[in-house]
Amino acid sequence: MASTKIKTGIVGGAGYTGGEMIRILLNHPDVEITFVHSRSNAGNPLYAVHGDLLGETELTFAADLSNDIDVLFLCLGHGESKKFLEANTIAPSVKVIDLSQDFRLGESLPGREFVYGLPEMQRDKIKAAQNIANPGCFATAIQLGLLPLAQAGLLQEVHTTGITGSTGAGQSLQSTTHFTWRANNVSTYKVLTHQHLKEIRRSLQLLQPAFTGNINFVPVRGDYPRGIWVTSYLESDLTLEAALQLYKTYYAPHPFTHVSDKQIDLKQVVNTNKCLIQLEKIGTKLVIHSIEDNLLKGASGQAVQNMNLICGLEETAGLKLKSIVF
Amino acid sequence: MASTKIKTGIVGGAGYTGGEMIRILLNHPDVEITFVHSRSNAGNPLYAVHGDLLGETELTFAADLSNDIDVLFLCLGHGESKKFLEANTIAPSVKVIDLSQDFRLGESLPGREFVYGLPEMQRDKIKAAQNIANPGCFATAIQLGLLPLAQAGLLQEVHTTGITGSTGAGQSLQSTTHFTWRANNVSTYKVLTHQHLKEIRRSLQLLQPAFTGNINFVPVRGDYPRGIWVTSYLESDLTLEAALQLYKTYYAPHPFTHVSDKQIDLKQVVNTNKCLIQLEKIGTKLVIHSIEDNLLKGASGQAVQNMNLICGLEETAGLKLKSIVF
Amino acid sequence: MASTKIKTGIVGGAGYTGGEMIRILLNHPDVEITFVHSRSNAGNPLYAVHGDLLGETELTFAADLSNDIDVLFLCLGHGESKKFLEANTIAPSVKVIDLSQDFRLGESLPGREFVYGLPEMQRDKIKAAQNIANPGCFATAIQLGLLPLAQAGLLQEVHTTGITGSTGAGQSLQSTTHFTWRANNVSTYKVLTHQHLKEIRRSLQLLQPAFTGNINFVPVRGDYPRGIWVTSYLESDLTLEAALQLYKTYYAPHPFTHVSDKQIDLKQVVNTNKCLIQLEKIGTKLVIHSIEDNLLKGASGQAVQNMNLICGLEETAGLKLKSIVF
Amino acid sequence: MASTKIKTGIVGGAGYTGGEMIRILLNHPDVEITFVHSRSNAGNPLYAVHGDLLGETELTFAADLSNDIDVLFLCLGHGESKKFLEANTIAPSVKVIDLSQDFRLGESLPGREFVYGLPEMQRDKIKAAQNIANPGCFATAIQLGLLPLAQAGLLQEVHTTGITGSTGAGQSLQSTTHFTWRANNVSTYKVLTHQHLKEIRRSLQLLQPAFTGNINFVPVRGDYPRGIWVTSYLESDLTLEAALQLYKTYYAPHPFTHVSDKQIDLKQVVNTNKCLIQLEKIGTKLVIHSIEDNLLKGASGQAVQNMNLICGLEETAGLKLKSIVF
Repeated sequence: MASTKIKTGIVGGAGYTGGEMIRILLNHPDVEITFVHSRSNAGNPLYAVHGDLLGETELTFAADLSNDIDVLFLCLGHGESKKFLEANTIAPSVKVIDLSQDFRLGESLPGREFVYGLPEMQRDKIKAAQNIANPGCFATAIQLGLLPLAQAGLLQEVHTTGITGSTGAGQSLQSTTHFTWRANNVSTYKVLTHQHLKEIRRSLQLLQPAFTGNINFVPVRGDYPRGIWVTSYLESDLTLEAALQLYKTYYAPHPFTHVSDKQIDLKQVVNTNKCLIQLEKIGTKLVIHSIEDNLLKGASGQAVQNMNLICGLEETAGLKLKSIVF
Repeated sequence: MASTKIKTGIVGGAGYTGGEMIRILLNHPDVEITFVHSRSNAGNPLYAVHGDLLGETELTFAADLSNDIDVLFLCLGHGESKKFLEANTIAPSVKVIDLSQDFRLGESLPGREFVYGLPEMQRDKIKAAQNIANPGCFATAIQLGLLPLAQAGLLQEVHTTGITGSTGAGQSLQSTTHFTWRANNVSTYKVLTHQHLKEIRRSLQLLQPAFTGNINFVPVRGDYPRGIWVTSYLESDLTLEAALQLYKTYYAPHPFTHVSDKQIDLKQVVNTNKCLIQLEKIGTKLVIHSIEDNLLKGASGQAVQNMNLICGLEETAGLKLKSIVF
Repeated sequence: MASTKIKTGIVGGAGYTGGEMIRILLNHPDVEITFVHSRSNAGNPLYAVHGDLLGETELTFAADLSNDIDVLFLCLGHGESKKFLEANTIAPSVKVIDLSQDFRLGESLPGREFVYGLPEMQRDKIKAAQNIANPGCFATAIQLGLLPLAQAGLLQEVHTTGITGSTGAGQSLQSTTHFTWRANNVSTYKVLTHQHLKEIRRSLQLLQPAFTGNINFVPVRGDYPRGIWVTSYLESDLTLEAALQLYKTYYAPHPFTHVSDKQIDLKQVVNTNKCLIQLEKIGTKLVIHSIEDNLLKGASGQAVQNMNLICGLEETAGLKLKSIVF
Repeated sequence: MASTKIKTGIVGGAGYTGGEMIRILLNHPDVEITFVHSRSNAGNPLYAVHGDLLGETELTFAADLSNDIDVLFLCLGHGESKKFLEANTIAPSVKVIDLSQDFRLGESLPGREFVYGLPEMQRDKIKAAQNIANPGCFATAIQLGLLPLAQAGLLQEVHTTGITGSTGAGQSLQSTTHFTWRANNVSTYKVLTHQHLKEIRRSLQLLQPAFTGNINFVPVRGDYPRGIWVTSYLESDLTLEAALQLYKTYYAPHPFTHVSDKQIDLKQVVNTNKCLIQLEKIGTKLVIHSIEDNLLKGASGQAVQNMNLICGLEETAGLKLKSIVF
């Protein structure tokens, strides 16, 4: 009897987002992993690279791709996904979910249109999509903090601080991810110029075409491995009650994004696919805090959420993850 | 149609191990949570105490106990479990799994005998048990590093270093869990006198009755929240190959404990129910490293593993947890 | 021969800023510590409370105050300094340096006027002062980032993010300084309402009386013990070169505040009395990063700097501290 | 008028120990830095590499060596010091203090004999020395915990756990110093085989020639940048009182090593040149805890201490460093 599970392939399975993809899919009730591709690791067990998978699976990295799959996840560096799709023949029937930024701004390839995969913005479009451009980590957290305002046409110039864990910088060894340097340290990078601003602006203008204000974004390197904290504020006529109403109504149909009536802290969402949002009204300013795990809701978790949607599965399948909490 | 799920109650649900119990059971496919008892929090939603549960459940803390359950988890402080069972009438049919140290050394109550719940030592006894004394966190990690030797009658005086995360100290505010003090710090406590030595010795002598050597244990406070690292060494005639063979054979039937051929590091098991073991042979000494998450395999995860066994469920049900890795 | 050293007393010597005061003054070449007052610790050696002082001094905490001193440091909680000065008779000749916020907004007591002790703003006034209100930690870092603009009359509405280490919260045990909670966590507090905004605004308006714009300040709890990172930005017509020129000229006479031409990171100043500043110009916005150790330049170090000034010592005496760097 | 300060040169000034050497010597009252040699950084200001030195000095790295110095510090990798001395002509009058392990076991070069630079073991020999082999970081902490026993002829087989901060691994980027990997992690390395065991054994046998027991040493990678914690235990007939008496008498003449009557914790010594020792007697075992900053008492601080001794300066000159404490 043939398996009725969704067959998936992972390209770039030796990196951080590839590893998270494997971890989620191994326990996903409706999915099987057909192959995890990695040329340099071909033949080695997955746990030789991802040590935590010892005892979880005997799967090995594959040197070759297979087209006998339903969904292909591309966990490659920026610029590499486009090259990969141009250099390899992927069967037209295979759905592609790309975690790079190569197709987030409307780029396409012959025969492959990509839909921006932010379910809280356009779940129906995603359900009907063949290919998904999975949003960036900061882009997800910032947008989830602003979508209800944009849909209501209430966005104005936004001031945003975002703090990210070191996993956002990937697994390559860099001076800014050296333990001795980063521990107990703080620094910023790409202040007011972060590349995610493009996809953020594109989404927000879809919802509020007249929005032309700045999104002033200060990205901060945090002293911890996982998670993104975002605080945005802007001028707003909304009362706190009206804002809460707006946000709660907007997110009511969405299983992973929740509005908290209490102060939030980052570890509420670390190692989960959730985004939590907290609102404050101070004088004439509305303050929005939004938090996520950059590798899950900000990357591989959201990719699986998108797979669930395009494959007609329950949106939360395989994504009820135990948080680390502490 | 009546639910066929196992009905569970949790006493002490506002603490660390109680919270982990809730997190696991909420996603356990064969279990439902009938109540989470907490007098001081009665009526409040669980997420008012455990903020990460926002969006996971609308359950509230219960002021009263119910006997319409199959399994009762006691997540109470040491000394409190015995008092609780003496003060409350628990139906004889209810299985009790106690996470305190009150019944680990053979203590019993009228009508309630307790079996020491270390599945890797005595799974069959556990399957037949009515009540379980769940092992201590350090006790679990140290024993899992020594059980195969004890069973083979090869234990001699052992030298052990154990490092624990701050969650081992619970949620009360103490000078040794103050962030400013503990961050970047190291200290030891209860050197050579840790209370877990009693249950460790008891188990080892069950397997190797003639063992009278010391277990010299240096407990260290680690600079991180979760996880226990243990390194033990002793004189041994075994070659590395023979030792690996002994350990791999011993743990082959056990789904959560695995022997690694490569160097291990703590984060391979954090936020999972696993224990990983690594062996080295240096001169005449056999070195055994064993690691676990102190709140899971060292507490609530093992409690659920024991519940699975005494209820006839798959041993791993509800316990395939995604590691934090990073 | 009588000692010609400055005689100092410390009230509140058991707390964090009191401890730092002791550490600095013990090695200050021109100062001696006459007493460290603490009722609850009277008679105990200083190292019984401040364990790192073992081997540094045999001084004990004093139950009584002495008026045979030149300078008195008040290292008390907010509200306590005023009470202390009202309840105790301090000789009029004794100079008082208060680290609380009790006198930062122009408050005074009969016979005691207080000068706001930010040397980079008003060194000459400080030199002539009898009593000093030592600035707040965030207030120091934010002001040092803005003073040159205010003096040039170029301030407009400011957007500021500030991240502080846990020592900023003092030594009392709180849920937000519990290691298990704070490690790897991020949260905000007093968003847009932090109490230091008052003293900041007061200083800036002294320099630029017409300034009425907001200072929008988002305070963040950082995951490390020591140090404050501040990023501020505002609209500005200045080129980067002109801004650098303005800042370098302003700070040229000040030995502890320096403008960096390279990206800065917090650990450059931890455990020193320095403030480093870095500028960026992005589009029409001027971005100012400023960093300090919250307990030194943000508290006790600056207090000693003020003492040096009011006592006619070299401004840097006793304050050439080795940074932790790593 | 010619300077009467000691003239020093530093080779390898771009590394961790070289940087610490600069930091100490810049504030040393009796010393001047004549050159800091680094071929790759020649001409650049020191603060271009050591960012925390901004505002401290305008010194630049030198491409060339000078022989117009009194003391030369070699802050080079293991094996590099010997090569350096063979390849370069150093005036015979120049005293050499080498921080590598090249000369710790009695190795010499023509015209250059090296004395092992552990002042608490052989201060008089050091005072008379021309060249110093500066001890290793773990070697210092372990020996300081055992010297009084060895001198009394009371050493037996020792069991030692040592935990080191990440700075011990130097500044090169390695998988074990990657922030994402090391944060919240624990691992061991070179278990029972650490290279420092040779110099430890050599010293101990000098004091107690008949000592042939093992020193069983488990080195642990700690989750913090700075500091070494060592716990050693052994069989001993000494009472706690007798042991305390032995240790306090032994260390009474030594200004940097102190015996604590209270529990110690690592941060008491971080960023200082001190070593603190705490004793416990449990049953028949004597437990010795010893702590230090691996870069100071374990490297550059001890090198300066040795310089002070061989140059006839006060032993503590330039080494009264403010601890980080928090």
